[in-house]
Amino acid sequence: MALGEFQMIDRLLKPLSCGFPGALGLTDDAALVDLPEGQQLVIAKDAIVENVHFLSGDPPATVARKLLRQNLSDLAAMGADPLAYLTVFGRRKDLPEEWLAGFVDGLAQDQAAFGLHLIGGDTVSTPGPLFFSLTILGTVPHGQALIRAGAREGDLVCVSGTLGDGALGLRVLQGAAVRSPEDAAYLIGRYRVPEPRLALGKALRGVATSCMDVSDGLVGDLRHILDTSSAAGGQALGAVIEAGSLPLSTPTRGMPDALTAALSGGDDYELLFTLPPDRRAMLAGLPCPVAVIGRIARGAGVTVLGNDGIAIDLKRASWTHF
Amino acid sequence: MALGEFQMIDRLLKPLSCGFPGALGLTDDAALVDLPEGQQLVIAKDAIVENVHFLSGDPPATVARKLLRQNLSDLAAMGADPLAYLTVFGRRKDLPEEWLAGFVDGLAQDQAAFGLHLIGGDTVSTPGPLFFSLTILGTVPHGQALIRAGAREGDLVCVSGTLGDGALGLRVLQGAAVRSPEDAAYLIGRYRVPEPRLALGKALRGVATSCMDVSDGLVGDLRHILDTSSAAGGQALGAVIEAGSLPLSTPTRGMPDALTAALSGGDDYELLFTLPPDRRAMLAGLPCPVAVIGRIARGAGVTVLGNDGIAIDLKRASWTHF
Repeated sequence: MALGEFQMIDRLLKPLSCGFPGALGLTDDAALVDLPEGQQLVIAKDAIVENVHFLSGDPPATVARKLLRQNLSDLAAMGADPLAYLTVFGRRKDLPEEWLAGFVDGLAQDQAAFGLHLIGGDTVSTPGPLFFSLTILGTVPHGQALIRAGAREGDLVCVSGTLGDGALGLRVLQGAAVRSPEDAAYLIGRYRVPEPRLALGKALRGVATSCMDVSDGLVGDLRHILDTSSAAGGQALGAVIEAGSLPLSTPTRGMPDALTAALSGGDDYELLFTLPPDRRAMLAGLPCPVAVIGRIARGAGVTVLGNDGIAIDLKRASWTHF
Repeated sequence: MALGEFQMIDRLLKPLSCGFPGALGLTDDAALVDLPEGQQLVIAKDAIVENVHFLSGDPPATVARKLLRQNLSDLAAMGADPLAYLTVFGRRKDLPEEWLAGFVDGLAQDQAAFGLHLIGGDTVSTPGPLFFSLTILGTVPHGQALIRAGAREGDLVCVSGTLGDGALGLRVLQGAAVRSPEDAAYLIGRYRVPEPRLALGKALRGVATSCMDVSDGLVGDLRHILDTSSAAGGQALGAVIEAGSLPLSTPTRGMPDALTAALSGGDDYELLFTLPPDRRAMLAGLPCPVAVIGRIARGAGVTVLGNDGIAIDLKRASWTHF
């Protein structure tokens, strides 16, 4: 049974707005948001498309949670606290109510976990693949947002958690062999429900010289930091990464493509940031594990050194998504 | 030739962010927005899908301008001033660069006209129909936003501009007969490039008891005001509309479906609002033409009286979209 637009808003979405007066119960053309004094608004917007960013067979609750979490990860990368979000549902007319209800359950679960509310959006019909868009709002004390354009020569290159799990989780869903059911569950879980590093982002305010989240793959994302920081500082910057320092989970170590996945697999939503070398001591006190994987250097581009000290050919280590 | 994601952002989208420092040149995970003191953020999000909300053959510049303008209309309905916007581009891999460039030209033209900037978003690929989403940000002095939930018994029901033009413009594009090429151009123009009533929305702050924009059709949209105001006031409210008072353009008067289009055609983006009867004198000084089309009354639902004083059967006056 497919729900009409107004039934869907009334029955499924309105409960997600309870507790946020400016959402106006989702009845109005727009929502109203007050910012606490001294805070800046931080805003990001992402979209996902069926069979491009998620699989038709994925559980709807995890599709929703991942969409919300990848936006929360954008807030984490800026050092922001979550506040509210808006959604677009692009749905085929025959989409079962159960699927939508599952999706909304996922939103409900994670908005409670991360302390934010749905405050608006749109539902539209499409004859094509399902698509969803989410706009997330957060706050950061004025002038304290983490941005990409601040890395300097000599800075440590750091990354949270472990790399490659998300990409390998997708491979497992596509049929790749894995050592054990526990490893499979771990990798699939990391692919479907990534962990936005909000507490880490807050802890890095005023300390990290640049920050972003790893969504497209470590090397490509690090190039964004280098490009932006080079342009801002007027000096060409590169990075030297040691492959042996990349943080890999035990299940990922058991997979043949582990290094490639860690370098260019993407979908990890870990924080990649740079830190002045004299702040290294703070790494021990952060709210999640952080590895130092290399240094910012004069020059250009990303060089990854293997355990033998010889640069790895990154063209041969590139990853293909589905 | 299709553009890559980063080329598209760099060449086409980045120029739209110039002049808004918090957009960070579209390089970062999120944008930063400061609100002037005493202002609330007003935020809305819409989406459009190819061959559902626009036609494949529509000029890309007007598709973009209409998307931006329908979001600006949401701000107008709240009495807000435009500030910034974010976009999602959902595009097929084979979409020609010229089409995208035309779309971006439309955004550039209207963001200059209405004084706002692109500050972020996402570009994704889709194997299905093109889709776009836009999130708009505006500001309103604290506590002065116009909302739907405030209509009272005896209030005048008012509407700006003319009704039915947008729906009939679509009919003309679909081949409906029209009196003259000038009439055709007028109606198609109203369908493709609606006028957001921002100055009117501002003028109604503190005066209108409820307000929304006419996007789905007058009768249906008026029911939203009645439902929301009834729930908020704890009293069932209805409305009596006089068909003879509906503001119709000369080209619309020349079409056979004029009344049906005005009552339920939608796509007009005029403001529909209620006004205490003792404020009728202010109507003469508003920044655009406004017609009084009826009254809020005790009861429920919308009654439309014909010129003979007999209620029109609204089920027979319902409009079908493409």
